[in-house]
Amino acid sequence: MTATATPAGRPADGRVARGDRTRAAVLSRAADIASVEGLSGLSIGRLAADLSISKAGVFAHFGSKEELQLATIRAASERFVAEVVVPAQAAPDGLARLVALLDSWLDYNRRCVFPGGCFFAGTSAEFHARPGRVRDELAAARRQWLGAFAALAATAVARGELAPTCDVAQLAFEIDALGTAANLHDQLCDDPGSYDRARAGVIARLRGDATGPHPALD
Amino acid sequence: MTATATPAGRPADGRVARGDRTRAAVLSRAADIASVEGLSGLSIGRLAADLSISKAGVFAHFGSKEELQLATIRAASERFVAEVVVPAQAAPDGLARLVALLDSWLDYNRRCVFPGGCFFAGTSAEFHARPGRVRDELAAARRQWLGAFAALAATAVARGELAPTCDVAQLAFEIDALGTAANLHDQLCDDPGSYDRARAGVIARLRGDATGPHPALD
Repeated sequence: MTATATPAGRPADGRVARGDRTRAAVLSRAADIASVEGLSGLSIGRLAADLSISKAGVFAHFGSKEELQLATIRAASERFVAEVVVPAQAAPDGLARLVALLDSWLDYNRRCVFPGGCFFAGTSAEFHARPGRVRDELAAARRQWLGAFAALAATAVARGELAPTCDVAQLAFEIDALGTAANLHDQLCDDPGSYDRARAGVIARLRGDATGPHPALD
Repeated sequence: MTATATPAGRPADGRVARGDRTRAAVLSRAADIASVEGLSGLSIGRLAADLSISKAGVFAHFGSKEELQLATIRAASERFVAEVVVPAQAAPDGLARLVALLDSWLDYNRRCVFPGGCFFAGTSAEFHARPGRVRDELAAARRQWLGAFAALAATAVARGELAPTCDVAQLAFEIDALGTAANLHDQLCDDPGSYDRARAGVIARLRGDATGPHPALD
């Protein structure tokens, strides 16, 4: 394809596609770095050097460090959805899908889909006390994540798998807490057994709220 | 007191005491900064400016950024022990002290003894994937913290308050997970109700392992 300008002044497909690929490569590398060193550790100069692109080329895509950080969070969310959320959709809705989401999440941590462990655990702890758009974006991602577990638990209640007395927000808070602790413990203390601990804690918790035996809790 | 040199070449008491006060002031400020911006955010120049001390004066105490980070972790540990561990010692050993330690910890988070919330939650997430002495020091602090809950749970088992089947390491892992999640959730999502969620989760968990009613679980 030629890279002539379109009537609207936007480059024709070839140049757009190249630009999209560059942007995606920068954000993938940025998410990997941020999982190890934090979003503060990102720099346009370093990304340009790592990917053999000009600083101006990287800067043209993001304009500021904050925009780069925000775009990195969104790219990490896409990877998280593809690696954690989508695989769990294969399980039947309700309790089975809730446990599938837990397993898929623990597996993502264990496999280090991001080299520094869970992107969101690290960056959320990094920005928790720094008001601004980055913190707001991470807080929204956290609410959405807890909401996903709460919605699955609510479906499990509606299907009669969990008792009507189950506090789904409390349950979601506890599931997230145990999985996040497993990621931290493995990363900090080199203890991959922590994922089994987290799973055992969640399954015991779910059995306490279950209306009866369920294959997902075996 | 005069600041003459002692026979051993060490400054006399007055100068030593001044040096100790400077060192304590630097570390207190460093721990506060690190709780918000991380240990990577520490700089000898900034600390000197904040405290109106010469950079050389700060440098003389620590020599390198890594030594400053390590000394900051130790100073934060001392503050943590004074604010969290010591108050809980007033409760009877076993289950009552375990719940007192939980309450004292949640209260320390709620009060923001460190302005950015729990010093250890933030800095452990920051350094979890960066091998070196700082990570080792934080990992040791984490093991000690989990060990404190496990030891209290073991005493509670020995006293017949918790069932002999109670897995004390698993219990300690879960208690830490819930309290850490509460700190993150409050800091990131401005939700102080998260401490009540964490407490409710731990108390329900303890009731499941308790041999019978206990005033600490009311």
